[in-house]
Order: sequence, then C-alpha cells, then structure tokens
Amino acid sequence: MKKHMIEVPVRYAETDMMGVVYHANYLIYLEMARTSMIKSIGLDYKEMEDAGYVSPVTNANVDYKRSLTYGDTAFVSVWVKYYDGLRTIYAYEVTNAEGKVAASAETTHVVVKKENFRPIRLPKVFPEWHSIYERLNQETAHG
Amino acid sequence: MKKHMIEVPVRYAETDMMGVVYHANYLIYLEMARTSMIKSIGLDYKEMEDAGYVSPVTNANVDYKRSLTYGDTAFVSVWVKYYDGLRTIYAYEVTNAEGKVAASAETTHVVVKKENFRPIRLPKVFPEWHSIYERLNQETAHG
Amino acid sequence: MKKHMIEVPVRYAETDMMGVVYHANYLIYLEMARTSMIKSIGLDYKEMEDAGYVSPVTNANVDYKRSLTYGDTAFVSVWVKYYDGLRTIYAYEVTNAEGKVAASAETTHVVVKKENFRPIRLPKVFPEWHSIYERLNQETAHG
Amino acid sequence: MKKHMIEVPVRYAETDMMGVVYHANYLIYLEMARTSMIKSIGLDYKEMEDAGYVSPVTNANVDYKRSLTYGDTAFVSVWVKYYDGLRTIYAYEVTNAEGKVAASAETTHVVVKKENFRPIRLPKVFPEWHSIYERLNQETAHG
Repeated sequence: MKKHMIEVPVRYAETDMMGVVYHANYLIYLEMARTSMIKSIGLDYKEMEDAGYVSPVTNANVDYKRSLTYGDTAFVSVWVKYYDGLRTIYAYEVTNAEGKVAASAETTHVVVKKENFRPIRLPKVFPEWHSIYERLNQETAHG
Repeated sequence: MKKHMIEVPVRYAETDMMGVVYHANYLIYLEMARTSMIKSIGLDYKEMEDAGYVSPVTNANVDYKRSLTYGDTAFVSVWVKYYDGLRTIYAYEVTNAEGKVAASAETTHVVVKKENFRPIRLPKVFPEWHSIYERLNQETAHG
Repeated sequence: MKKHMIEVPVRYAETDMMGVVYHANYLIYLEMARTSMIKSIGLDYKEMEDAGYVSPVTNANVDYKRSLTYGDTAFVSVWVKYYDGLRTIYAYEVTNAEGKVAASAETTHVVVKKENFRPIRLPKVFPEWHSIYERLNQETAHG
Repeated sequence: MKKHMIEVPVRYAETDMMGVVYHANYLIYLEMARTSMIKSIGLDYKEMEDAGYVSPVTNANVDYKRSLTYGDTAFVSVWVKYYDGLRTIYAYEVTNAEGKVAASAETTHVVVKKENFRPIRLPKVFPEWHSIYERLNQETAHG
C-alpha cells in the first residue's frame, strides 16, 4: 500500500537529560501516524470508541537507529503490513530531515469491547473497516 | 491539619534536556501526594470515579524554586488549605533531601458528574467526604 | 502586542481515564506556543541553550475552564505580559474550535547559566533578545 | 541470574481515555526496574553519565497481555538475558497483584559517548561493569 506520512516537530518536553527524544515517546509518534492514516482512508477511530470498542496495542517493537532532538522534525511513515480480520500489524519508519532513519517499528493491534477487553472480529462488527483493511493488506502482499 | 508527605524518587523519563525534572511533571508529583493523602484519611478516589464522578483541577499554581534531577528524591507534603463544600484547595511543598524547597504549589478542585462535567456539592452527594474535609478545614483555620 | 497562536490537535496519549486532556499536559501546550512565538519574532531558543543558558519556568498558573479531549484541537494564544530584563511573564489563552475558553494561564521565566542555574540579566548577555522583549513589553503596556 | 523486582503503583497520569495504563508508559516501568537492578548490584548509572557516557535503547519489544489501571500495582521483574561486551539485552515480566502477566518485554542497550553517540566496548572503558555483567550473563546461560 501507499505509505502515509506525518511530520512531528520534536517538543522540548519530549527530550530527556540525554539531550535526545526519550525512547518511549516514539510510541506516541507512531500512534499519531497510525491514527492520521486511519483518518486519511476515511475511517474514524473516535467513532469506534464511541461505539464501545477500543483497539489496544498487543505488541510494539521499535529499533532505534539515530537520535532526534529539540529543533528536529520527525517524519513518520506508516503502512498496513498484515491484516487477518482479528489482528492488524502496522509498520513504521521514522526519518529525520536528511532522510536518515531514526527508527523503524511495528505495532500489532486487536479490537476489543471496552467493557471486558474481549477481542472481536472486524468482519462481523466493523464490516466497513474490514473491507478497507482487506484491500490494504492485499496491496501490501502484491506490492 | 497535619501535613501528609510522600517520597518520589525522580525517574529518568521525567527529566528534559535542561538536565532537570521537566516542570509539568511537578503536577504529577502533587497529584500523587494528594491521592495518597486522600487514601490515608480513609477515603477512596477510585470509588468516587466508579460512582460516576470525577474531581478535575480548576486551578494549578506552582512556584519553582530549585531544580531536581535524576538521582534526587522529591519529598512532597500536602494539606487542605480551604474547603467550602464545593471547592477544595490543597497546598503543597516539595523539598529535596537537604530539606530545601524545590517548589511550593496550590491546586483547586471541584467534583463533577463524569457525564456532563457539572459541579456537585459534596455535603449532598458525598456526605462522608464532606464531614472529613469540613474537619480538615477547621484544623487549618485554627492551626 | 499582537498575540501569537498555534493549533495543537489533541493526542490520544494526552488523555487520562477521566476521558479528557490530563491537566499537566496544558503546560506542554503553553511551551509549544511560547517557543513558536519566540521563533516567529526571529529569536532561537535552541541557540540560547547551545550558548550555555536555559530559561526555566519560575511560576506557572493555569485556570482550567472547559475540558478538551481526543478529536479536539487546542488553539493556544500567547503574548508577553511583562518584561523587566530579568523576568518575563507570558500570558496564554487556550480555546476550543468554537472559540470557547478551555484555559487561561501565565508563566514566569528567567534565564540562567546552565552550569549553576544562576539568573542573568538579558540586556547584558542577550542584547538582541532584550531589545525585542523591551518593545513587546511596551506594546502590551500601551495596547 | 536472580530476577530483580520492583513495585510500581499506577499513577493516574499514566492512564489514558481507554481507562488503562497507556502502552508507552510500560517502557518507563521497564527503565525503573532496570536502573533499580543496576543499583542493587552495586553499579551507578548516574556516574556513567557524569563520566560522559549514556546508554541508549537500541531495541524495545513489548508484548501487552493484560491491562493495568489506576489502583493497580505493577510488579516488574528484570534480568540480564544476554551480554557480549558491546550489547546488553534485558528481559522483563510485568505482573499484576494476582501474579497474572500484564506484559513481557526485552530491551537492548549499548553504551555510547555522549558527545558523538559512538558505541564503546565495556571491557575497555568500564571494566567493573564488564566483569559484573559477564558474571550475570553466565548465570543466565547456566540457569
């Protein structure tokens, strides 16, 4: 699939005494790229929550390659790497202004009922999400 | 009233590139002291939330006097400065290991219904909280 | 002076279990507006840090009036309220998309040497900053 | 090696609107366990930083299995899984009060010069760290 990219100017608050962006904050950048991509394909994560469902992260795997600091902008690309109706795996690449890779990452997600955190299958509960993700997944497979 | 104190070892994640605890994080330390005090007097904030109420901050005023950094411990004291059934004002002092003041602060709180954020009066909805806070307030007035 | 405004789309990570932006995160929004304003008037905070100086917050005072949540955008205005060569007070207003006030605030800052956190006077060490802030201050006084 | 465990009461600020601990905050819990372990074996990470070196994370991999929320305590165990003089891999298990696994994780670290972020070899620069980690690594291999 086509990658979706956002630009995130580093906030001072995101640095630590090492002088660079604190590593946990990359997960926030990834989430911003992911929710921006979801919006860009015409879906609305907030509506999913309003309907009583949430989509927690079940795995996050980040390779840190080059640090970012205050004054830098993080360019965060995201795409759907895998989707099977139950789990979705997003892949990410974070680059700096020179195009050098600061981090690459993957996060895995399910959708659960908010009241009991039980996973649901998207084809049944969110057919529109399913058909769009099905298509994104095939683009990845053939791209 | 008697002051309630907690010890908070500074986390690396709480520092910024200035090499000290990022100023917004003091509000988290204050909250930890406040909820610890509430627990220590036999009340349970979580129960209040489970009953459909939350207690947002309506004002926070912090004087920063001396920085803290990784390796330091913040000693955070809290007491009830004012209570009138609707609003509660907590006062705080944050000191370092040598007893020197790192920050002093006040936060003001109301209790609201979670569904509409409308303030409620504690004597009516939470009589137990009211009688305890009434007493703490008088101790302050006469202390 | 003319107010400087930035738009900050609320991040999911900035919410808490109350369902709204966690109160400490407003201080981060204020800082983003402040550093953006500084940049817009041709100054560079990062250069100040590279020269061995930092500008810590000595007081932060926030009135919270209306909550913001995920899906909202915070419109953060900032202007110089007071400047005397040693201390600068910035004032802020945070509004939502309907123009209703979510928060108003003030933060006070000094500039200190990074190595010992001793305050310095801007006219002496940063004359360019001084002349610009002097002017901003007069605009406020006469506006 | 023997596992090192710390207890972390969940902070309100660490939750998000999903009502549970925000996933990025687990990385902070892991760091707290890791630095606590380092201290418990007689080493001092702050000294390493004071000597001009820092130890950034090069990979973080977290499996989220069960959510934690305000009112819960996270029990975080950590141990050295691998060490070769250049890279150290720590493994973690986060459990709740009932002993059920909330998350398991691994983080990989190198030590670099703060001024240029170039990796160094511990046997040469920090022989004391090296001999202790060498031993921890062997305990793991034979445990």
